[in-house]
Amino acid sequence: MATAPRGDYATLTEEDIKHFAGILAPTSILSSLPPFNHPQSELNTYNVDWLGKYHGRSKLVLKPKTTAEVSAVLKHCYNRKLAIVPQGGNTGLVGSGVPANDEVILNLANMANVRSFDPMTGIIVAEAGCILENLSNYLAPHSHIIPLDLGAKGSCQIGGNVSTNAGGLRVLRYGSLHGSVLGLEVVLPNGEILDQLSTMRKDNTGYDLKQLFIGAEGTLGIVTAVSIHCPPAPRAQQNLVLALPSYNQLPEVFKLAKTHLSEVLSAFELFDRESYELVCHHTGRRGLDENEIGDSECFVLIETSGGRAEHDEEV
Amino acid sequence: MATAPRGDYATLTEEDIKHFAGILAPTSILSSLPPFNHPQSELNTYNVDWLGKYHGRSKLVLKPKTTAEVSAVLKHCYNRKLAIVPQGGNTGLVGSGVPANDEVILNLANMANVRSFDPMTGIIVAEAGCILENLSNYLAPHSHIIPLDLGAKGSCQIGGNVSTNAGGLRVLRYGSLHGSVLGLEVVLPNGEILDQLSTMRKDNTGYDLKQLFIGAEGTLGIVTAVSIHCPPAPRAQQNLVLALPSYNQLPEVFKLAKTHLSEVLSAFELFDRESYELVCHHTGRRGLDENEIGDSECFVLIETSGGRAEHDEEV
Repeated sequence: MATAPRGDYATLTEEDIKHFAGILAPTSILSSLPPFNHPQSELNTYNVDWLGKYHGRSKLVLKPKTTAEVSAVLKHCYNRKLAIVPQGGNTGLVGSGVPANDEVILNLANMANVRSFDPMTGIIVAEAGCILENLSNYLAPHSHIIPLDLGAKGSCQIGGNVSTNAGGLRVLRYGSLHGSVLGLEVVLPNGEILDQLSTMRKDNTGYDLKQLFIGAEGTLGIVTAVSIHCPPAPRAQQNLVLALPSYNQLPEVFKLAKTHLSEVLSAFELFDRESYELVCHHTGRRGLDENEIGDSECFVLIETSGGRAEHDEEV
Repeated sequence: MATAPRGDYATLTEEDIKHFAGILAPTSILSSLPPFNHPQSELNTYNVDWLGKYHGRSKLVLKPKTTAEVSAVLKHCYNRKLAIVPQGGNTGLVGSGVPANDEVILNLANMANVRSFDPMTGIIVAEAGCILENLSNYLAPHSHIIPLDLGAKGSCQIGGNVSTNAGGLRVLRYGSLHGSVLGLEVVLPNGEILDQLSTMRKDNTGYDLKQLFIGAEGTLGIVTAVSIHCPPAPRAQQNLVLALPSYNQLPEVFKLAKTHLSEVLSAFELFDRESYELVCHHTGRRGLDENEIGDSECFVLIETSGGRAEHDEEV
């Protein structure tokens, strides 16, 4: 278990809890301190990361429902010098979503509304706590997709995706969030709300401050809502797994894929022999013919997604 | 002619010119002051914008050849409190590339080297003064393209494109420069060199400071080199001009184009009746059948670019 030195922050008191109880609904507060006295074990899922590697000792989880509530919480913490850790779906693998010590956990799960979607421009405005997969499902009947796909999509939240600049499986096709994110609403450490929730694809007025919060891990402010440009849904997807005798062949295979698949190439993922064997073991299925694989060192999964099935099949 | 109030900056002296002459080659300096005494008229092309709308009164144009030279120039201007205007191809239409008063013009035209290109990743590192079209020509034999295309491509420079966050004709297809630009080298106002010239497509370490300089018009620092992700060259391009009876039909046509052309749609440009007539007049050719156009209010140019000609032709 890793430890980090505790900074010179204030320690949470009953007075603080009472103050938060005046801002948030009782159901938005989870605390082992009075007057709530929830068992500390109820806070475990918020104090421990997904891998169980980092353990915090926070006694207070706040789950605000509106941007105004986030602002009021941050204002108090700022004035009282209480440390905070913002938390999305808590699917991170580097421990940045859980407290290192006794920070207040500000969890965004209760802010999960889609504020708007414009089928003409493909731009969705969603609150930070929206789960990635829910956004995908929301867009499906409108024939659009979120330009982001991750293994954790069933639990990760869009605010966390933005704050960690998650790349995911489709970064090859749709680029990074620096290009897809058109606007952000952020609550700054002092509680001030920075509204840069533009829905214009090309907004060049002034400095593009919102870019700083993409990948800043919540250290500069807490993302409460995002505006994202969503591409039309591909009408066809194909997947291919290749076994490569050695890692040396990777660059050439990648270049061939880029050249020949061009705009329909959407993912190119590498996995080693051990991962391949684990997948076979756990699914009980072998993807490729055992005799032909031989002692291949690694495997590549290639995904294409395009406007027309017959085109992708030709390639 | 627009005028802007002159700030509280120092006035250029012969001593300053001598100092710059110690930093730069004589051919990198154009000045109507001693010891150079070039006729002021020779500075006209730098003092006036492309439309001839804004006229500056600068007496000194500096054209450094290296980042170190830019740094030394800025350091001196910073210490002396001399105002500067950075200038690329001077193709801007809003007057931000020319002096409002007597600022020193720092022109990047002499920094026009391609520092590297990696055909595997498609990443080019180019100095700010590279002309956009020259970069396209450089990449052509490598079957890659710059993800940016503008009318001014024959004279605009990549540093200016980044500093103005130029969108251009292909923003629909390749997104904004916030996504394509992977790294920047910038000289800060005090002469310090900020090296964020990453060539990694997904570099999430620390704050993405370089994003602030994209679209900052040189006010936060002078971009001296850029690293850009270049897509593989499309192997087929198609163009189509449509006459629309009224502007009301535009949104529907745009939506149809997005849905049916999907990933091959690369440009969707609107022009009004008057522009259409002007094009016909000046080229002596009419693109569409006069009888069928009737009194159409506007026209749309749609460009597709894809990996395979036969696919685009089907659509």
